[in-house]
Amino acid sequence: MTKVAVLGATGMVGQRFVQLLENHPWFETVCLAASDASKGKQYGPAGNWVLDTEMPEFAGGMAVSGCTAKEVADSGAELAFSALPSDVALRVEKELAAAGIGVVSKAAAHRMDADVPLLIPEVNPEHIGLIEAQRQNRNWAGFISSDPNCSTCQLALALKPLQQFGPQQIIVTTMQAVSGAGFPGVPSLAIQNNAIPFINGEEEKMEMELAKMLGTLENGAVRHANMEVIASCNRVNTQEGHLESVAIEFADRPSLADIAQALEQFRGAPQQLGLPTAPTQPIVVRAEPDRPQPRKDWSAGNGMSVTVGRLRQKGSYTLFSCLASNTIRGAAGNGILHAELLHKRGYI
Amino acid sequence: MTKVAVLGATGMVGQRFVQLLENHPWFETVCLAASDASKGKQYGPAGNWVLDTEMPEFAGGMAVSGCTAKEVADSGAELAFSALPSDVALRVEKELAAAGIGVVSKAAAHRMDADVPLLIPEVNPEHIGLIEAQRQNRNWAGFISSDPNCSTCQLALALKPLQQFGPQQIIVTTMQAVSGAGFPGVPSLAIQNNAIPFINGEEEKMEMELAKMLGTLENGAVRHANMEVIASCNRVNTQEGHLESVAIEFADRPSLADIAQALEQFRGAPQQLGLPTAPTQPIVVRAEPDRPQPRKDWSAGNGMSVTVGRLRQKGSYTLFSCLASNTIRGAAGNGILHAELLHKRGYI
Amino acid sequence: MTKVAVLGATGMVGQRFVQLLENHPWFETVCLAASDASKGKQYGPAGNWVLDTEMPEFAGGMAVSGCTAKEVADSGAELAFSALPSDVALRVEKELAAAGIGVVSKAAAHRMDADVPLLIPEVNPEHIGLIEAQRQNRNWAGFISSDPNCSTCQLALALKPLQQFGPQQIIVTTMQAVSGAGFPGVPSLAIQNNAIPFINGEEEKMEMELAKMLGTLENGAVRHANMEVIASCNRVNTQEGHLESVAIEFADRPSLADIAQALEQFRGAPQQLGLPTAPTQPIVVRAEPDRPQPRKDWSAGNGMSVTVGRLRQKGSYTLFSCLASNTIRGAAGNGILHAELLHKRGYI
Amino acid sequence: MTKVAVLGATGMVGQRFVQLLENHPWFETVCLAASDASKGKQYGPAGNWVLDTEMPEFAGGMAVSGCTAKEVADSGAELAFSALPSDVALRVEKELAAAGIGVVSKAAAHRMDADVPLLIPEVNPEHIGLIEAQRQNRNWAGFISSDPNCSTCQLALALKPLQQFGPQQIIVTTMQAVSGAGFPGVPSLAIQNNAIPFINGEEEKMEMELAKMLGTLENGAVRHANMEVIASCNRVNTQEGHLESVAIEFADRPSLADIAQALEQFRGAPQQLGLPTAPTQPIVVRAEPDRPQPRKDWSAGNGMSVTVGRLRQKGSYTLFSCLASNTIRGAAGNGILHAELLHKRGYI
Repeated sequence: MTKVAVLGATGMVGQRFVQLLENHPWFETVCLAASDASKGKQYGPAGNWVLDTEMPEFAGGMAVSGCTAKEVADSGAELAFSALPSDVALRVEKELAAAGIGVVSKAAAHRMDADVPLLIPEVNPEHIGLIEAQRQNRNWAGFISSDPNCSTCQLALALKPLQQFGPQQIIVTTMQAVSGAGFPGVPSLAIQNNAIPFINGEEEKMEMELAKMLGTLENGAVRHANMEVIASCNRVNTQEGHLESVAIEFADRPSLADIAQALEQFRGAPQQLGLPTAPTQPIVVRAEPDRPQPRKDWSAGNGMSVTVGRLRQKGSYTLFSCLASNTIRGAAGNGILHAELLHKRGYI
Repeated sequence: MTKVAVLGATGMVGQRFVQLLENHPWFETVCLAASDASKGKQYGPAGNWVLDTEMPEFAGGMAVSGCTAKEVADSGAELAFSALPSDVALRVEKELAAAGIGVVSKAAAHRMDADVPLLIPEVNPEHIGLIEAQRQNRNWAGFISSDPNCSTCQLALALKPLQQFGPQQIIVTTMQAVSGAGFPGVPSLAIQNNAIPFINGEEEKMEMELAKMLGTLENGAVRHANMEVIASCNRVNTQEGHLESVAIEFADRPSLADIAQALEQFRGAPQQLGLPTAPTQPIVVRAEPDRPQPRKDWSAGNGMSVTVGRLRQKGSYTLFSCLASNTIRGAAGNGILHAELLHKRGYI
Repeated sequence: MTKVAVLGATGMVGQRFVQLLENHPWFETVCLAASDASKGKQYGPAGNWVLDTEMPEFAGGMAVSGCTAKEVADSGAELAFSALPSDVALRVEKELAAAGIGVVSKAAAHRMDADVPLLIPEVNPEHIGLIEAQRQNRNWAGFISSDPNCSTCQLALALKPLQQFGPQQIIVTTMQAVSGAGFPGVPSLAIQNNAIPFINGEEEKMEMELAKMLGTLENGAVRHANMEVIASCNRVNTQEGHLESVAIEFADRPSLADIAQALEQFRGAPQQLGLPTAPTQPIVVRAEPDRPQPRKDWSAGNGMSVTVGRLRQKGSYTLFSCLASNTIRGAAGNGILHAELLHKRGYI
Repeated sequence: MTKVAVLGATGMVGQRFVQLLENHPWFETVCLAASDASKGKQYGPAGNWVLDTEMPEFAGGMAVSGCTAKEVADSGAELAFSALPSDVALRVEKELAAAGIGVVSKAAAHRMDADVPLLIPEVNPEHIGLIEAQRQNRNWAGFISSDPNCSTCQLALALKPLQQFGPQQIIVTTMQAVSGAGFPGVPSLAIQNNAIPFINGEEEKMEMELAKMLGTLENGAVRHANMEVIASCNRVNTQEGHLESVAIEFADRPSLADIAQALEQFRGAPQQLGLPTAPTQPIVVRAEPDRPQPRKDWSAGNGMSVTVGRLRQKGSYTLFSCLASNTIRGAAGNGILHAELLHKRGYI
């Protein structure tokens, strides 16, 4: 068993990590780290558990650790899942990597660094190779490997098998769940009976991160994909599962049948390697006229599958709606699958 | 005072008509008509009032009439506001028009008929001229003039002052309120903590109706506007106010300042004529990063103004969000303004 | 395997029956019956599936049957779970019983009949004995045995182990979920951002049914329990899990510790008999200050356990909050457990 | 015009004060005070306006003041409306009173002090007399007069005209809106599709404050009313308007007609004095079976009236539901009416 830590363990995404790490076949959670406010307390009371399922038994009695490299290393953890706020991540994650710990980070802090992989195991497993350069550049025994933004992750996954058709322009409008803002996150008074056409920084993240993840590794660096991405991000009053309306113009004008087949038959490295957290089918295509829906489809593939529906054409555009769990595939679940790939490839 | 009837008076839109007709300076409501199930009952109990404000006093004690031409004509009504279901409207509205009654209809039944105006008073007041041809074609003493679909109405209004810049492609994703489906409409079990990426027939309506309303009257017929409209319609859990994310490619590439100015300074026939229901400012532009929001902006201009926000550019596209009350500007309020224009122009 | 039918299979509770009967170890579903509107269609399309989980595979392709005794008997079903509307149940259920079919009914139609058991297997299993009298009275080869109202069921279960302390007055205020009204049920426009202090007939049901279920079987008849029940029923905007605030005055003034122990240690016939659908612990007591909560506790014991929290005393009253799934323990789940008891006792 | 300050002006209740003070005929707002984080900024940006209506024009450009007695006194304010957090109020309000400023406080800090009025102008206007004792005891030129807790305020108002019938036991279950917790207050993730059977300290406040407000002023002190109050407080997912289910046992067993008449005909000091913020009818009784409802009734009497419905009897108990706006009658509106009474009586 590889010993792992969760940083930011008391937050929303941290709790998802704790939940998904229960009974993991390869990883043993030895350290739950959080801010100084919680440090030293038992995780049970400190964790302010917000998920609907019960807190895993292993976690409740663990003492919350601080987030310094020393404290994490002292726990014996070789790998740290980071759900830290970006400003804290910027400071802490480098220290951990320097101290020989592998960091799989959900924070935005290092996502666009040229030598940091921004990884979805089904989409760009080869980007893992950036770690070599990173270690050399930064003289680190450990490493940092980033998870993408939640609304970007599901779209990148849906686009991967369609890249062969030459996507040139992608216009996406998101309807994002409140869990994407963490806990306490969005006040009920702000979002009940309402929708908010703005999420700070989200559109820029979608536009930049998609290009990096769909880019190619060439000579040890990522060449970003060349396509126009135009995002409009909205918050709606759902709890889990970002719904996205997508319009794509492809160079090759594939038929709807070609697209549906490419989506359904897509399998990536996690499926080929049989990674424990890999969904059997990364992309589920639904034929009903009114799917995907957040409440019905967020948990497809245990929250690891993207559901695509309403596939249709209009003029030169291919249109569809897509949805995945933003806290599982869009955060902690992708992070764990990501770590499983790193483990399989010998990075940890 | 012109005597008016409301057809479909017990439904959601019918109730808005009743609400807005209270104390109208030109129109006196003499007939509340509904299906046979309610006929003969008092409107108060039969109406199953769902609006948050109290039912107007004048309405509660009126006896509900049937919807036949004879019954409506017997009430003395010269004008009928129709909020009938489309299949009923298809049958009833022609009879009324033949019987000499002017029908302002919210039903989809006749919207795309070549000789029926599809009217937003600020957008295409000149289309009213189709009524001459209609009367001749159909040998009617009365007429039918249609109101557009709710999600289309607000977008057409926002586009009108931008038509000068040559819109070529319009990609719109809607987040529509449940009141758009009437009452009882959307079950709480279907939409709570959910969003539904489909509204039957809505995308087609947006695509067809926009082109007609933004078209030009030439030789007594409407030449539809030549532009590509791509709509994706979603239901979200809000009560009132459809939010729309819009991306437009203009031939003339206007600056954001030009666009903002055109929107803010736009005034149409209702403002010039001082019609009673006309909002002072048909389009309100907000500079805050997170507006328009349904709960905060649906009632702008007493529900008759469209709010536009998040104006920005990305590549060759101009992006914005827009919102208006779907049951006032998008239904009954536009219908009454529409009737005021007809009255001013001598059609009733 | 005992062959069973579901009557009213396309409704909300009917769907829960279908869901819970998948892979049942004793019961094989051979008939899905519904109104004439669905008759003859495949259940998949006709069923208009509203539950968040996928429809069980066995059901999708079955042809929907009519609800007559002949049609149900022809399917080979020995037992019918009825989720029919009460007026239909009143007509149909007797025919089935006369035709030799056992009916476990969720309908209110026969609940208060003196010779019909109103059954919660943990609460009053001995009431099953009424079936003898019923068969004799009515000359039936089959029988009718009723499930209680959903808000009553969970309260009766919580009260059972406290009956030893002599409850004299029970004042209960409910906050009931929209699924209690079926599908389509409560319109979003009616309940969003709202609460409704009235559910037609609900308070009377709670007051009457509690007394019957907590009554004793004496000489082949139920002597109703002697206690005052005062109910105020409210609809709130939750999907599943009725929350109830309860104040009870006990003759014996038990301590909170006595009450907590009685609740937690309570086990009934289903637990003793090891019935397949029996929860290990019928009543879960939570010590946190803010439980039970609908979203967190509705699925306790797979929806078959009642959660009790906020146990406290004030003056001569014992106070607590309780909650259970209204469509599982409060409807289909209790019905199946009920049938398991009947099966074990040889009635089917 | 009397110059007034609002303390805690950037919070939820503070914003209601600012909203309701716009164009007040007697009070001129000269000081908007908040915590050091906002001090010196313009109120517009600092205020983070959350109400659905637009921020009053007068407020947007005012500089936010600190909350010290010196800063408030320097503004010229003679009266301060305090919407401060209780711990801050405990420190600040005494300084203001000592400095000669009258404080009408929404904070819980001083509500139960024996020489501080806890005032609802229609309920216990004579308690204002405590101010004499207070000034003498504390050697203050100013004073502190408290507003009650929001869920208590509406119940006290509904009970006032019923006190003549000898209420002995009051059992109340509340369903409270999220605005009662301020802003940001309750996270959407906590309350969406949920209800929470606990609000910290609320039940104790209801039990204590009711007895004080319904008590009698005897020899310069309040003798608390002698009645048992048992409260169970729940948070539900509504925005405004606490709904309460109430069961009362009266010594005199009044008829429902007597009760309805007493409620409807009740008028208090504000109505008799014609205070500007006084509702015409403090208590509105509705005969419909399903009222009051938060969304439909919260704004009765501009948010200053309590709506009572579902009046009925069961055993020895009189039952009803009541509701009022928790941020207007339950907070800022009562505070302003309270100040109007103080003004009329010469205290400011």
